Amino acid sequence: LDRFDTVTIIGVGLIGGSIGLALRSRGLARRVVGVGRDPGRLDEATRLGAIDHGSTDLSLGVRHAEVVVVCTPVTRIAADAVAASEAAGPGVLVTDAGSTKRELVAAIEAHPAGRRTFVGAHPIAGSEKKGAGAARPDLFDGRACVLTPTTATPPDRLDRARAFWSSLGCRLSEMDPTDHDRALAATSHLPHAVAAALAAAVPAEHLALAGGAYRDGTRVAGSDAALWTGIFLANRDAVLHALDDFEAHLAAFRQSLSQTDEQALIAWWDLARTRRQLYDAKAEGPGSTF
Amino acid sequence: LDRFDTVTIIGVGLIGGSIGLALRSRGLARRVVGVGRDPGRLDEATRLGAIDHGSTDLSLGVRHAEVVVVCTPVTRIAADAVAASEAAGPGVLVTDAGSTKRELVAAIEAHPAGRRTFVGAHPIAGSEKKGAGAARPDLFDGRACVLTPTTATPPDRLDRARAFWSSLGCRLSEMDPTDHDRALAATSHLPHAVAAALAAAVPAEHLALAGGAYRDGTRVAGSDAALWTGIFLANRDAVLHALDDFEAHLAAFRQSLSQTDEQALIAWWDLARTRRQLYDAKAEGPGSTF
Repeated sequence: LDRFDTVTIIGVGLIGGSIGLALRSRGLARRVVGVGRDPGRLDEATRLGAIDHGSTDLSLGVRHAEVVVVCTPVTRIAADAVAASEAAGPGVLVTDAGSTKRELVAAIEAHPAGRRTFVGAHPIAGSEKKGAGAARPDLFDGRACVLTPTTATPPDRLDRARAFWSSLGCRLSEMDPTDHDRALAATSHLPHAVAAALAAAVPAEHLALAGGAYRDGTRVAGSDAALWTGIFLANRDAVLHALDDFEAHLAAFRQSLSQTDEQALIAWWDLARTRRQLYDAKAEGPGSTF
Repeated sequence: LDRFDTVTIIGVGLIGGSIGLALRSRGLARRVVGVGRDPGRLDEATRLGAIDHGSTDLSLGVRHAEVVVVCTPVTRIAADAVAASEAAGPGVLVTDAGSTKRELVAAIEAHPAGRRTFVGAHPIAGSEKKGAGAARPDLFDGRACVLTPTTATPPDRLDRARAFWSSLGCRLSEMDPTDHDRALAATSHLPHAVAAALAAAVPAEHLALAGGAYRDGTRVAGSDAALWTGIFLANRDAVLHALDDFEAHLAAFRQSLSQTDEQALIAWWDLARTRRQLYDAKAEGPGSTF
């Protein structure tokens, strides 16, 4: 594995911090620079060993970067990626870790410097926690990471993006940005919305009687509101479509229960159980880790 | 703590097996008898140390019992509890571990022997796994257990039910059976239905991109279909009401997202996050364990 020279991480929170920890603990980069707006958070990331040093000046921070990884919220990724592609040297690879891809890839590729340097990426790893304090060097180990090259993506940057994300331990796949957003609407954005609706639907006075189904089903509702609002808005149509599918399943449950149709309820549940077991089989299968 | 003499467990699966393991590992009973329809499962429960011996004959199995705990699916609890109360001595305490209470308590109390001996109970502990092989002696440690006495419940049996469930490590509370079913519709039955709908809503071809929100949000969809169908049907009206509440929260999300109303989405998410944090605070608070 070739070592990267300077890697600059823009946004050193949970994801950016974990990338920094992975790079530094594996000796994958000569130097890791963090860029952020809050000097206190950059100091914390430095103390935690996620970056070698920090800068609040994006242009300075990316100037010598061989790779720039943009880990800011999806609402800011396009602007940060374009700024980085314009401030860094012409050989830079700019990639990101955003949960949505279609809008931001299009926005970045609308800029010449962005089009020459950018490869969209989405490492599917995270937590309801935020900040570099929750970062872990093994966050990406065996996790799926989707790269979203387009016809505009320079092949040499795509190769380097593959090498970069693989070096962090990710299991790579590649998709069209629009296909990515549709898939992730179902696999991630919908489950987050459902978790939040479920969290709110249980009255506070009954929480002492909540068991494991509530605990696990609502865990991600502890995530940041602005972060998830940005993701939902950036993938609005696909999320609404996934919500339609989910509500159709709920409506089938409602109808069978209203009619006290035992056989229909059993069949409904068994379809869900089979899908869930398929997920477990994929998650536990050889060579496939989640 | 006084030791119980013979405790008979009807239905030695995950819950019944865990009760047996808890009784035997804590030395709480002189003898633990298992009653079931399948001799092979009774042999397994004996091998695992969950019971001292098993019987496929309910009348024989409960004959010398001081306490009978009915751990069969909710569709069978009333018949098993009545049969046990008629076959055991007049001093017996019959209790259960069913997830619903209103219908079955009424059915049992409609029988004179049931009315003289029964105290409804619901230890809120479980797993998506089934069978005595998944049983654990600590399953009830610190878990909530709701007793559902009525005006018909004999005070001495209620005292003994309190002693019995406390001895397993449960944190006791008492509720009217109807109030119990309404609360559990929200805290447990709805979360199970939502998990199943979510499990089924993600297309099989996208499961490799499913992350932690799907994994945790659908865990309980691996549970047994007949078991959960029985629970939903036994608590139909309350589950439909909880589903209304949940769908109202989803509808609010849909409307805000359709209108790209960022502030409304943030407020919606923050309500959910606050509720989930309240749950965490209760779960982690001193003296309160979930």
